[in-house]
Amino acid sequence: MGLYGSSVEYGLHCLLSLADAPEGSPPSSRDLAEFQGISPSYVAKLFTRLEKAGLVASAEGIGGGFQLARPADKITVLDVTDALEEDKSLFVCKNIRARCVLYGDNPPHAETRGMCSIHAVMIEAERRMRDSLAGTSLADLAGEVRDKLPAKTSADKAQWFTDRQAGRRKRKTIP
Amino acid sequence: MGLYGSSVEYGLHCLLSLADAPEGSPPSSRDLAEFQGISPSYVAKLFTRLEKAGLVASAEGIGGGFQLARPADKITVLDVTDALEEDKSLFVCKNIRARCVLYGDNPPHAETRGMCSIHAVMIEAERRMRDSLAGTSLADLAGEVRDKLPAKTSADKAQWFTDRQAGRRKRKTIP
Repeated sequence: MGLYGSSVEYGLHCLLSLADAPEGSPPSSRDLAEFQGISPSYVAKLFTRLEKAGLVASAEGIGGGFQLARPADKITVLDVTDALEEDKSLFVCKNIRARCVLYGDNPPHAETRGMCSIHAVMIEAERRMRDSLAGTSLADLAGEVRDKLPAKTSADKAQWFTDRQAGRRKRKTIP
Repeated sequence: MGLYGSSVEYGLHCLLSLADAPEGSPPSSRDLAEFQGISPSYVAKLFTRLEKAGLVASAEGIGGGFQLARPADKITVLDVTDALEEDKSLFVCKNIRARCVLYGDNPPHAETRGMCSIHAVMIEAERRMRDSLAGTSLADLAGEVRDKLPAKTSADKAQWFTDRQAGRRKRKTIP
């Protein structure tokens, strides 16, 4: 089991496609889902969260779709995990120290207020993890992915999105 | 939602009690559960895992119970989270890049083998988090908790475990 699962993996792959999308051809969330072979309704849900977090913006008009709301080097992996999994943390503290048998029904405020030392250790570990995620941008990731792929695959990808967009424009202009 | 939940919180609190247990009075898992106001059967389950991981050892004989298997400064918080939540990781990668529409049913080995760049970023963040957890020992934590508690509470705690152990010895020696 992982803290971050498919929402982060799917979301990041889609955002990497946006980072590389051909100029003037904003992909729709359906394009992104079909390109990646994943559920369009799930991707639509992820894009609602990404848009709410200000990471993507929808382009209006014929052939409209999504684009990054700011340059790819200004969006970190942490921005994306926070947008998609905002309720996830490393540790959930139930403050069980207050249930200690010595305290009975009246745990003394002085001994159970403030952060438990266990929780503090977890928060520090989470901070290190978050700092690490904040140190990589979408531009960094997109560069690494591009470096691994043959030029032909990158060109095929750009062509696929251009064709899809042209197809959508065409369908929309036919009455 | 958190990656680590009550198993880690309960386990660490119990281990801190073991770190501070009076000499010659190994608490049972039931003692530890009752002291902390948590489920004895759940604590017994946690101790099975902690014993399997070599972090605690059961002391045999009348009044037997658990003790740390090595000094508290040689057991890290990471040892404990790994023992109690061994199947947890920061990120589970489904390698969805292999589903890309460009590949059809035959994703090319050369483009989908090796670690995905997204997964690599997550593994690095997890490594930082684990390094942080490995940097705190049970002895460190026990010291911090002791520093926060009034001397009377620490003395009451030691007395509670001594009394419990004496009670168990007494019950076991009466036919």
